[in-house]
Amino acid sequence: MTEKKKTTIVLFSGDYDKAMAAYIIANGAAAYDHEVTIFHTFWGLNALRKDADIQVKKGFMEKMFGRMMPKGADKMGLSKMNFAGFGPKMIKNVIKKHNAMPLPDLIEMAREQDIKLVACTMTMDLLGLQKEELLDNIEYAGVAAYLGDAEDGNVNLFI
Amino acid sequence: MTEKKKTTIVLFSGDYDKAMAAYIIANGAAAYDHEVTIFHTFWGLNALRKDADIQVKKGFMEKMFGRMMPKGADKMGLSKMNFAGFGPKMIKNVIKKHNAMPLPDLIEMAREQDIKLVACTMTMDLLGLQKEELLDNIEYAGVAAYLGDAEDGNVNLFI
Amino acid sequence: MTEKKKTTIVLFSGDYDKAMAAYIIANGAAAYDHEVTIFHTFWGLNALRKDADIQVKKGFMEKMFGRMMPKGADKMGLSKMNFAGFGPKMIKNVIKKHNAMPLPDLIEMAREQDIKLVACTMTMDLLGLQKEELLDNIEYAGVAAYLGDAEDGNVNLFI
Repeated sequence: MTEKKKTTIVLFSGDYDKAMAAYIIANGAAAYDHEVTIFHTFWGLNALRKDADIQVKKGFMEKMFGRMMPKGADKMGLSKMNFAGFGPKMIKNVIKKHNAMPLPDLIEMAREQDIKLVACTMTMDLLGLQKEELLDNIEYAGVAAYLGDAEDGNVNLFI
Repeated sequence: MTEKKKTTIVLFSGDYDKAMAAYIIANGAAAYDHEVTIFHTFWGLNALRKDADIQVKKGFMEKMFGRMMPKGADKMGLSKMNFAGFGPKMIKNVIKKHNAMPLPDLIEMAREQDIKLVACTMTMDLLGLQKEELLDNIEYAGVAAYLGDAEDGNVNLFI
Repeated sequence: MTEKKKTTIVLFSGDYDKAMAAYIIANGAAAYDHEVTIFHTFWGLNALRKDADIQVKKGFMEKMFGRMMPKGADKMGLSKMNFAGFGPKMIKNVIKKHNAMPLPDLIEMAREQDIKLVACTMTMDLLGLQKEELLDNIEYAGVAAYLGDAEDGNVNLFI
């Protein structure tokens, strides 16, 4: 049994820049051999949405939320200076220029490094998101599982 | 002397959804027998405001803040998609539909579970909030008390 | 070799009120003899910008970001009730009235207490900020250095 250090991040935010920060810290921690979990809740679930238009049965409210929220990491806005979508374009532009990684690549890297990506089932319910709409091969859990990971963690962050 | 695990949350945000996340994690941690503290500072103090219109003597600035800030948990807006108050109505609607708990009930549950609710006295001063305006039977403290709780905590979050 | 407690804060936010909270907690922790680090990333870097107009060579995008972002702690806006700059004036007014410390003084105090102020080099690159534009005598590092500080920290916060 290995005694790895643990990093556990709650990703609450649906902002492109905050999700970038979460995934950069997570990927860094995994590179330093931490056991890493990102627990996606509320708007943070949008980072796990598939790009495609998935057909699932939903009530009216759930359809409204589904339409208004960004479909996947690449569609998310900035927390500051979003300027109706111009801000994210600027950021993606400088990311490319500086050979940094855009958010979808950071998420892909997290999967390759076996970072545990968890979707919060309670808020999926609230926002009307279904498993078919989220990336494949992620985990589903509630606050109890989060606390189980976090309570003996070394780095616990709420982003 | 019991050696309980500790969860200490700074609630800085005055957003309904972020306060929900804070109280869900807090209530979960209390259910798992953690010693839990929520330290309310800046806009997070609004979650502790009484619903009623309390008459207290205030200067001009303090009156302004008092009027502009939401009076209690039920009046708080969303961090995303607030749409001039329509967003919170949607969230409360789906909370009811899914038998989840709205924020005032989560706060009530926290009190029943003996979660320590603390109001930050320094920011109460800044925002001109007085004890009469906040819920009864909460605690009042400053950053020193927060650090005392947090420094040997297991889960420390800033929300 | 002393075994000091450690507080490590990621300051991601460029909001005046959030930066105040970060520096108040940091200064408090330093007063209680913690070893304290504030790692400034993304918009949090603006708290470290010099007030003056520094002439450095930049590309177009970097110039745009440089112009749109606040030049230093005193120019930052509020996370709530900013009202096109009126909110920060109100806050600074009540800070003065209550003999509390405005953000630039809190940063100065942090420097006097030997709090380690770090600028994230990766996001400096992204936002096109150069060392000449930031306060003197700060440190420069990446996510690896942050994790080194955070992984055996007592209080870890993302603000």
